[in-house]
Amino acid sequence: MRPFTAFWILALAAALPAASPETHRFIPERFYNTYSAAHPPALRVKPGDRVVTKTIDAAGVDWDGKPVANGPNPQTGPFYLEGAEPGDMIVVTFDKIEPNRATAYSGSLLAPYAVDPATINARVDREPKRMIWNIDKARGIAWIESPDLKPSRLELPLRPMLGCVGVAPARKEAILTSVPGAFGGNMDYAWLNAGVKVMLPVNEPGALLFIGDGHARQGEGEVAGTGLETSMDVEFSVDLVKKKAIGWPRMETETHLIVLGSARPLLEALQHATSELQQWLIADYGFSERGAGTFMGQAAEYEIANVVDPSFTVVAKVRKALLPRR
Amino acid sequence: MRPFTAFWILALAAALPAASPETHRFIPERFYNTYSAAHPPALRVKPGDRVVTKTIDAAGVDWDGKPVANGPNPQTGPFYLEGAEPGDMIVVTFDKIEPNRATAYSGSLLAPYAVDPATINARVDREPKRMIWNIDKARGIAWIESPDLKPSRLELPLRPMLGCVGVAPARKEAILTSVPGAFGGNMDYAWLNAGVKVMLPVNEPGALLFIGDGHARQGEGEVAGTGLETSMDVEFSVDLVKKKAIGWPRMETETHLIVLGSARPLLEALQHATSELQQWLIADYGFSERGAGTFMGQAAEYEIANVVDPSFTVVAKVRKALLPRR
Amino acid sequence: MRPFTAFWILALAAALPAASPETHRFIPERFYNTYSAAHPPALRVKPGDRVVTKTIDAAGVDWDGKPVANGPNPQTGPFYLEGAEPGDMIVVTFDKIEPNRATAYSGSLLAPYAVDPATINARVDREPKRMIWNIDKARGIAWIESPDLKPSRLELPLRPMLGCVGVAPARKEAILTSVPGAFGGNMDYAWLNAGVKVMLPVNEPGALLFIGDGHARQGEGEVAGTGLETSMDVEFSVDLVKKKAIGWPRMETETHLIVLGSARPLLEALQHATSELQQWLIADYGFSERGAGTFMGQAAEYEIANVVDPSFTVVAKVRKALLPRR
Amino acid sequence: MRPFTAFWILALAAALPAASPETHRFIPERFYNTYSAAHPPALRVKPGDRVVTKTIDAAGVDWDGKPVANGPNPQTGPFYLEGAEPGDMIVVTFDKIEPNRATAYSGSLLAPYAVDPATINARVDREPKRMIWNIDKARGIAWIESPDLKPSRLELPLRPMLGCVGVAPARKEAILTSVPGAFGGNMDYAWLNAGVKVMLPVNEPGALLFIGDGHARQGEGEVAGTGLETSMDVEFSVDLVKKKAIGWPRMETETHLIVLGSARPLLEALQHATSELQQWLIADYGFSERGAGTFMGQAAEYEIANVVDPSFTVVAKVRKALLPRR
Repeated sequence: MRPFTAFWILALAAALPAASPETHRFIPERFYNTYSAAHPPALRVKPGDRVVTKTIDAAGVDWDGKPVANGPNPQTGPFYLEGAEPGDMIVVTFDKIEPNRATAYSGSLLAPYAVDPATINARVDREPKRMIWNIDKARGIAWIESPDLKPSRLELPLRPMLGCVGVAPARKEAILTSVPGAFGGNMDYAWLNAGVKVMLPVNEPGALLFIGDGHARQGEGEVAGTGLETSMDVEFSVDLVKKKAIGWPRMETETHLIVLGSARPLLEALQHATSELQQWLIADYGFSERGAGTFMGQAAEYEIANVVDPSFTVVAKVRKALLPRR
Repeated sequence: MRPFTAFWILALAAALPAASPETHRFIPERFYNTYSAAHPPALRVKPGDRVVTKTIDAAGVDWDGKPVANGPNPQTGPFYLEGAEPGDMIVVTFDKIEPNRATAYSGSLLAPYAVDPATINARVDREPKRMIWNIDKARGIAWIESPDLKPSRLELPLRPMLGCVGVAPARKEAILTSVPGAFGGNMDYAWLNAGVKVMLPVNEPGALLFIGDGHARQGEGEVAGTGLETSMDVEFSVDLVKKKAIGWPRMETETHLIVLGSARPLLEALQHATSELQQWLIADYGFSERGAGTFMGQAAEYEIANVVDPSFTVVAKVRKALLPRR
Repeated sequence: MRPFTAFWILALAAALPAASPETHRFIPERFYNTYSAAHPPALRVKPGDRVVTKTIDAAGVDWDGKPVANGPNPQTGPFYLEGAEPGDMIVVTFDKIEPNRATAYSGSLLAPYAVDPATINARVDREPKRMIWNIDKARGIAWIESPDLKPSRLELPLRPMLGCVGVAPARKEAILTSVPGAFGGNMDYAWLNAGVKVMLPVNEPGALLFIGDGHARQGEGEVAGTGLETSMDVEFSVDLVKKKAIGWPRMETETHLIVLGSARPLLEALQHATSELQQWLIADYGFSERGAGTFMGQAAEYEIANVVDPSFTVVAKVRKALLPRR
Repeated sequence: MRPFTAFWILALAAALPAASPETHRFIPERFYNTYSAAHPPALRVKPGDRVVTKTIDAAGVDWDGKPVANGPNPQTGPFYLEGAEPGDMIVVTFDKIEPNRATAYSGSLLAPYAVDPATINARVDREPKRMIWNIDKARGIAWIESPDLKPSRLELPLRPMLGCVGVAPARKEAILTSVPGAFGGNMDYAWLNAGVKVMLPVNEPGALLFIGDGHARQGEGEVAGTGLETSMDVEFSVDLVKKKAIGWPRMETETHLIVLGSARPLLEALQHATSELQQWLIADYGFSERGAGTFMGQAAEYEIANVVDPSFTVVAKVRKALLPRR
């Protein structure tokens, strides 16, 4: 038995709701452009409950192609988790993240901080045109055909994700939904797909979970400044781990333990993620400081989630199969 | 037929040597601690030739456990490629990178720039102990057992690589072999394994290829400051593409086109890699500037090779299967 | 006549209040830890009015040594300026910034991002002791005597300043008062002393001016993490320039035009300040883009305000005496 | 008596040459584009000797307007200091730095890393024109009149300086003369004027001192990529302090102790300078670690020397009048 399994059973046992889990269907009508505890809860849920909901695209356009909110990244929520208090951790398990309309849009120029200044200076065509992609769920692809592009047709597999998963930040801040941080937010991680567990700290009673900014697909780094921005059908369940303070958002997949550090400059994002991953290995997987350092030196993996948001996001992770048996 | 295949056939055709390729067996006796055109060629080879050679470890210890050079990263070479002139590109194809002794060493503390300053400040045990690993080629693993570690035993699959592959830099610089750059060098990329093609610019007549710093395995980022440092048996062939100027080292594998940008800060390494990858797509794969931007925004992948050398290395890459058909 | 004089006469003429300026005496009783338009105005003033008020220290301790608010940097205000609307600029002229108690406190360790990681690692004494300084206004000095220090006595001239001068940020953000930005805030600029004019953008009706975080003195960079933190008597008048959009806080002194850019990494703070200074020279001093570039290359001066806050602040400035005559 | 005076008397006493100091007149005919111990000494001098020499401009043009070397920054030297060995420190006192021709050239666009990417992207005129300035030593000014500029005439006081003062680097590196570092080099510090003492580490026997890259004037940051580049008459004397290891170049003026840290990113340059200044205060001025931290927090000053070279340079300094009496 792998250690993480034991952890989940023990950790979630404490949080098991007395009542049986409910499924909530929630169609959002109001959207938010800040992560903030000042926004009234849109829905109250209990640990173990499941939410079936929708998100609109980063520009505020919904599943019917109707503009219903201002960009960037208007959020669905906040969802109030009963019993969540500062110092706890919530676990959001995404069962479904699926485009619910036929088009997405993207940028077409590499973003200012993704390329050399000399490349910006040498650019012949500086107009930031918005590109419209088609989503073909039957074939599992997104494609575009445009005379503005060479080659004129591009076709890529769908890999739907949420750019934004966050909670109300600490200390009464109201943070723009373009920003990622310790509270989660606009991390723009291409591998935040259906099937993952996302762990976030609780800073305010009820945690106040927000989601949004769905991408039918996104390259790592989000170097064109957007993913394939579209509206989504989303289903998730949410759990609570009491008295479990974490410094940065974590994820767990079938194969990996993952930490998402956000900061600017890019190196500090990496430093946050690396430091937090070491803490995690020490706290939950039986490592000493030196043991974790020795292991991570030969086993750590890194990904760059985004270099286009006000803070950048770097992912540090380890393959669970490489963890020593205990 | 995929475009890269066409490219290689055309590109290398021009460079086909008149004479048939030779295989050189070269046991190095002298090692270098700078990349520099001032060092005399150790061996002259022709395009298409194959070299069977050895590298010593980063501390200067050879396959017999004998210290034979000063660290860090004493290099085997330089290999002089006949016909190579500034403005050309060399292509080094590695057929074998294999540990040739039974031990490797590694660091055990996370490196100064890999963690938060607060983590450094809070560290209880600051002594930089060197760890000795065992290499078990039969089982395909490296393992360590040490009372200094918790858990006391770690075991990881072998994944041999070269930390250093470089040529003489431009403008008569002599650059320490701890440094990566446009000339290649100490990029410490965990996926520079047997099977890859490495492309480097030619800055001096004969290119002057150096290799060294073998790791039996390394985590991404090289965050403990070392891989599993050991000596290697190396076999490679080298080709020449005339009048092909490239800005940064490139690699091609079965699946990916890869660029390695090096700089400090980390973001500039990413900017170099991204800009160069865009240039490559434009020059060789039929993209316009906007086409490449749109494609890379949804298809680029990134890796962090190292954050411990004097310059850091970031890898930008695209999966060849996603390139549009032509 | 120097050009800036003409500018002020013209600019402020438009803003001259119909009624004669008032002097408001305002003793704050409530303090804020975020810059936010959600806080109710503490006082309404008209352009040209003068405000005589007080600030408490960064830890929330007032002029009587009484803790009255939570740190860090609890703010006096917000002051609502009648007629100020988004797109305008306010001009705050400080006539008095003067310590109003006999002690100040400071940090004693160089801050995490102000020194090399190796220096942190090598530190023998890591305890962050708070030092208590004495303020001797008669002699114009602050001094400390402590067995924790070697030499045990330090004595430095007073140079009172405000670490924080800010307005409500744009887009409904609530930003911690530890943070500097385009809205001003915790810039920690050692030369924001009595006598200066501070110009800030207006993002919300009434601008909502906050002040706080007085230092009896501070080194540049604020590298020990604090100035000599104390409470202050402050007197300022505030003016309004209609339809004058600025990108970053500006200051004008008798000798200099000054821009304060804030960001992380440090270089981006410099880039903001440099870009904005160039814009200022173009908009108000008759320079072309190339003229400003040529001039700034040989005349720009820089200061580092802080490298300890969540964003760092860099100051770009030019000596007014060097501006070409017009 | 101020402590630094005592220091100099003691420190230099040990180094007093047996023979009386000589004055050498040296007109350079060969110039170097790397800092390297591989270059043959141009002149051998003894501690205490004085050198009267010349430098050519950054593009290789001499006092007669004749191109005599390749750019960038061809160096006069190297001067071999008898008795200097690795682990010593040399002290170069500049008595004269004076333009010796009637013109200088400068850039006219703000450099790529000195402005926001958005400013680069929005630039209307991207052509990097070289501007020619006139040097009027009688009036003490440099001036330019050009239809390319608005205003068409600029006039600034002369403030002659050397952009480059360096020694052969450690470990057999050959470093481009565009680069600053621990060995000195292209620091481009606007206040390296006649009258200053520059202290550099000795890495190779004889130290091998190089000078060059004179500017008739330069703004801080060197944000247009150049100063007013011209040839210079230079007079200096050189002393030796035995067994005095320093980490970074230092300067002493009548008023300040100064450290010049160079690195990329900008913050690391500041970290080097701050850490080294603390070491200096501890080693030579009687401070403990915490004493130096407390003092520097309220007394440190910073300048940005350059943000345009391959490494950037930040200056940390303290006013000698603020040092505690001993």
